[in-house]
Amino acid sequence: MMESEKNIAAETQSSGLRIDIISCVPRLLDSFFDHSILKRAKDAGHAEVVIHDLRDYSIQKQKQIDDYAFGGGAGMVLGIETIARCIRSLQSIRIYDDIIYMTPDGERFQQKMANRLSMSKNLMILCGHYKGIDERVREHFITKEISIGDYVLSGGELPAAVVSDALIRLIPGVLNDETSALTDSFQDNLLAPPVYTRPADFEGWKVPEVLLSGHEKKINDWRMEQSIKRTQERRPDLLQ
Amino acid sequence: MMESEKNIAAETQSSGLRIDIISCVPRLLDSFFDHSILKRAKDAGHAEVVIHDLRDYSIQKQKQIDDYAFGGGAGMVLGIETIARCIRSLQSIRIYDDIIYMTPDGERFQQKMANRLSMSKNLMILCGHYKGIDERVREHFITKEISIGDYVLSGGELPAAVVSDALIRLIPGVLNDETSALTDSFQDNLLAPPVYTRPADFEGWKVPEVLLSGHEKKINDWRMEQSIKRTQERRPDLLQ
Repeated sequence: MMESEKNIAAETQSSGLRIDIISCVPRLLDSFFDHSILKRAKDAGHAEVVIHDLRDYSIQKQKQIDDYAFGGGAGMVLGIETIARCIRSLQSIRIYDDIIYMTPDGERFQQKMANRLSMSKNLMILCGHYKGIDERVREHFITKEISIGDYVLSGGELPAAVVSDALIRLIPGVLNDETSALTDSFQDNLLAPPVYTRPADFEGWKVPEVLLSGHEKKINDWRMEQSIKRTQERRPDLLQ
Repeated sequence: MMESEKNIAAETQSSGLRIDIISCVPRLLDSFFDHSILKRAKDAGHAEVVIHDLRDYSIQKQKQIDDYAFGGGAGMVLGIETIARCIRSLQSIRIYDDIIYMTPDGERFQQKMANRLSMSKNLMILCGHYKGIDERVREHFITKEISIGDYVLSGGELPAAVVSDALIRLIPGVLNDETSALTDSFQDNLLAPPVYTRPADFEGWKVPEVLLSGHEKKINDWRMEQSIKRTQERRPDLLQ
């Protein structure tokens, strides 16, 4: 989606985090940003995600953006000309804290990186597709390469959405209850304790007694105990 | 989206992988499954993803599906009654290889797990939301808990889409060029080598000579060398 100059002016004035995502399948993310907390965050002025169609920046008649790899081999490669034009066009309007490329060989995304990046003002995220992007884009334009995990996906769009979601939910005011994000897994290197809700007895499967006791200290102690136990069992590496 | 009996019958006959995703924000994933390779995979009969609205299974008048946590604390919890009804309803039609819950404290998703899961016939994926789901669901219904990485998101929908994408692209015939997935990062414990496409010279930034040489063996050697170098620099853990 190309923005009008008017929109750009309005958005520039908004506070909070702005994320520009560059994609060759921009429609893919529409419903995500229309339905999630990101929609609420946008409406409240806390954050804004704008998706740019890479094809809009192609100067070729057929709007082609990819080509065969030099040296042969399977898969198409996104070319540098169109990407350079797109990145430079965005840079002419805003100063970016980081120009991020989503790639499985990037730095591993984790909660601490999310905390840090959530304090940015403007981020640009380039989504790869097909076999990847021309290496010269990575050398000359990208300032940060991020992987969301050791697996290969068909494009960088879902990873870009994952990063956007992780960042934006940390911005004060985005979650309904501000204490909610603070008690999530990883914020204190402990996994979250088990949670239960009504009914207290479902087909004979009962909620632990202590949670029904109303005894705040006992409940907190039990939760901490469970957090530690779960972390020891599942992720002892977090305790080191 | 509730399916008609007719649809269910038609889908049951299809070959390939079927993934049923249970979500309380089903619209969130619409555009993703309508635009990605998953659409092509579905049209070709290789895979099918069906999203179920958890709210459709609530027996409460207001279609409520979450409630406060026993013992107090921030955030809402998805209750066991509705989830149990939804899972059992799906189980009455199909046998599932796994009933997966997306959670940051689950087993880490990586390429080998994707390879293995891609050979399943029917998978069910439950997306958490808010503060999580009643622990009894995890104990009694879930057969596999998966985390896509050490970060917290606002729901399990994006992770479910990530897993679906990673699995479905591995199914033979889904990618245009079957060799394409085999040369991805991680399949041989090496990161992929750099790729380049036209122009060979962009503003003085040149493509490595060897790739223009047409000498297949030299090109393959260079790529292997670059793969190893990149893996040593970025992910020495993969080489051990």
